Amino acid sequence: MRTVDIIERKRDGAELSREEIEHLVMGYVRGDVPDYQVSAWLMAVCCRGMSQRETFDLTAVMASSGETLDLSGVGWPVADKHSSGGVGDKTTLIVAPLVRARGVAVAKMSGRGLGFTGGTLDKLESIPGFRVDMRPTQFLQQLSREGIVVSGQTPDLAPADRLLYALRDVTGTVASVPLIASSIMSKKLAVGAGALVLDVKVGSGALMTGLAEARELARLMVEIGAAAGKRISALLSSMDQPLGCAVGNALEVVEAIQTLRGEGPADLVELSTLLAGEMLFLADAAESLEAGQRLALEALASGRALEVFERWVEAQGGDPRIVGSPGLIDQAPFREIVESPRAGWVQGVDARKIAAASLLLGAGRARKGDPIDRRVGVVLRAKGGAEVQKGQPLAEIHAADAAVARKAAADVLEAFTLGAAPAVPVATVLERLGPDGL
Amino acid sequence: MRTVDIIERKRDGAELSREEIEHLVMGYVRGDVPDYQVSAWLMAVCCRGMSQRETFDLTAVMASSGETLDLSGVGWPVADKHSSGGVGDKTTLIVAPLVRARGVAVAKMSGRGLGFTGGTLDKLESIPGFRVDMRPTQFLQQLSREGIVVSGQTPDLAPADRLLYALRDVTGTVASVPLIASSIMSKKLAVGAGALVLDVKVGSGALMTGLAEARELARLMVEIGAAAGKRISALLSSMDQPLGCAVGNALEVVEAIQTLRGEGPADLVELSTLLAGEMLFLADAAESLEAGQRLALEALASGRALEVFERWVEAQGGDPRIVGSPGLIDQAPFREIVESPRAGWVQGVDARKIAAASLLLGAGRARKGDPIDRRVGVVLRAKGGAEVQKGQPLAEIHAADAAVARKAAADVLEAFTLGAAPAVPVATVLERLGPDGL
Repeated sequence: MRTVDIIERKRDGAELSREEIEHLVMGYVRGDVPDYQVSAWLMAVCCRGMSQRETFDLTAVMASSGETLDLSGVGWPVADKHSSGGVGDKTTLIVAPLVRARGVAVAKMSGRGLGFTGGTLDKLESIPGFRVDMRPTQFLQQLSREGIVVSGQTPDLAPADRLLYALRDVTGTVASVPLIASSIMSKKLAVGAGALVLDVKVGSGALMTGLAEARELARLMVEIGAAAGKRISALLSSMDQPLGCAVGNALEVVEAIQTLRGEGPADLVELSTLLAGEMLFLADAAESLEAGQRLALEALASGRALEVFERWVEAQGGDPRIVGSPGLIDQAPFREIVESPRAGWVQGVDARKIAAASLLLGAGRARKGDPIDRRVGVVLRAKGGAEVQKGQPLAEIHAADAAVARKAAADVLEAFTLGAAPAVPVATVLERLGPDGL
Repeated sequence: MRTVDIIERKRDGAELSREEIEHLVMGYVRGDVPDYQVSAWLMAVCCRGMSQRETFDLTAVMASSGETLDLSGVGWPVADKHSSGGVGDKTTLIVAPLVRARGVAVAKMSGRGLGFTGGTLDKLESIPGFRVDMRPTQFLQQLSREGIVVSGQTPDLAPADRLLYALRDVTGTVASVPLIASSIMSKKLAVGAGALVLDVKVGSGALMTGLAEARELARLMVEIGAAAGKRISALLSSMDQPLGCAVGNALEVVEAIQTLRGEGPADLVELSTLLAGEMLFLADAAESLEAGQRLALEALASGRALEVFERWVEAQGGDPRIVGSPGLIDQAPFREIVESPRAGWVQGVDARKIAAASLLLGAGRARKGDPIDRRVGVVLRAKGGAEVQKGQPLAEIHAADAAVARKAAADVLEAFTLGAAPAVPVATVLERLGPDGL
């Protein structure tokens, strides 16, 4: 099998066999196939696409390229969720306790934030003492004992995906639906929760800005998961505005606690309980989606989910007192209020612009490995649909110093669109996609 | 300027600026841009194409990436020819003396053979003593003194093209009309003959098997040359059958000498005098193409071209006695006659199959740097249009040993199509393409 022949076949739009895909991917992992050949193949995939069968095979090859975690012996039904990344998306911190509170375990390996999408690990690490680096045995132990665990990916998990992703990042080959789907799903297949819900974000603050492409990605991931024997579904959720009000790592943890206390913003509560309901349904702990969401809402109202959160924080080494006293979480020294320049109705708050302001404040990374300031960010005081008076606060900037706070305030103001009439309400969840019969 | 942004723009079908192309190409030459990024860009070009302006810019950037040769001081009008490569194509050995015999100098840097296309350098080196490795000063000296020179490319000539070609070869990015055109033309612009004729081969024994693609390549090269101020035209010539009868390095030199003696096969004489006529016309030594071809035919008939050939061989260190005694050229020890299995009319002789037999005999290279046997090859005794009797010789195999001769003989027989009626004659030259007004 000559590598160059395989590349040429993909260049000409042919369907590669599983053996050919394995030759490229595992050859790259072993160092037999050089990066310049792999990047040419990746670009051919970006331009010519992959069939469903090729995408299944690529996912399977990457999933089995390193260590895999068998969760069958942990004594729980196990569910997982994946978000394609959005602005202000702290749902994992709420959904995991909701699901665990109803008897289904949650096991999740998560990533760091990059670009305008925040990372769950960065958020959790703003809790004093919280540890996210675990070895597979520790991960499995905590899952068995507590029924809830969120950690960083172990380096041996799907190493082929890690290597390919690093190459895609520098060769302009990230933007390909089959490559994105297989990258995400390879890690999900390697860890192996039986139930999985995907939250695919659509809008200005998401990787997918158009509904059609987001739907294509969601459908492909559902098909990959179903073919691998998972109970899986996907929600397409709106990311034109930030989710909830807080954007920035520590600020989002505080908002997650408020939400678990029953005081969360409507969109965040809706999406979190829907996702939890999906997971309960997929894990056979609820007989329908509606029943699942109802179970989640009850866990929220009873305070049971907040108790689970507290225990979870303690189990991963964090200070559980933050639940009662969120002030124990490090706060930014400077605040600046963004006031409305005139009376009117908020039509929308551009998620991408809020993310840019938050990046400017130091809450995110432009490049992998960049340091971040977990204290800083933006808290919205008004979102689409709200009526505001002149001088009324639109948002609050949390910054490391006064100069950057002023700069970010100007950007945040620009994210707001004000109009003379009430805005048309935007749905939080746009569509649900399940495999046949789910 | 971020390399990855440039690659993404090409991936999405955008037109790159000259600065962006320079960033990639010269960055690669300097070692600033890594090969895995360049190969991704090359694959994007294969899939998305390049505009005429981009192709002009890429050619210019590669042409000026190293040493350039200024031929304006050599005291002659200078013409060059380029063949896209075919089976049995020994026209340079005939055309160069024809043109020089009519007062126009020929300066050509040539390549080695690869795959099924023979290389002029390999053919010339089968002449005892003939030297093709020259430094630029030697090249210019011989051009001034003799008005005829053919050498290998100096390593400093268009180094960007050499590096890019090596990368394309192993990344499945050879097959792109703009990349092929800019690669060929960058070397032609770097050497700088004022008149240039392109011989683009079409058919089973050529890189371009279809007329439409060959026409596209020819037109693009003519446009690049014209935009750079060259007098340039292209002939599309048929490569379904080998050109002439001899295929194999030494065998082709012998056929070239026979042709210069006035005893050449009709198709070889036709194409050689047409190409020479083009060069004389483009170099302003003939007032029309027809007049140019007439001048070439006269140089052939008078024996003047053969004299020029003899002088040329001597000037480059070769043994000029081969002109009178071609037996001085090394011959293969084994011969095998391929006989016709039945009576009939030869419909055609598949050039690709003859090339494969000749590769099997050791006359060509499967990979760059492979050793070759200059003595071996195939001589056709019949071509399309001939009537043959049962047992009549169709071809003669020249081999290093009897076993390989037998094997090749079977392949050669397969290249022949015999029919019950005379074949429709095939034109040698299919089309001529010139820029406006030429």
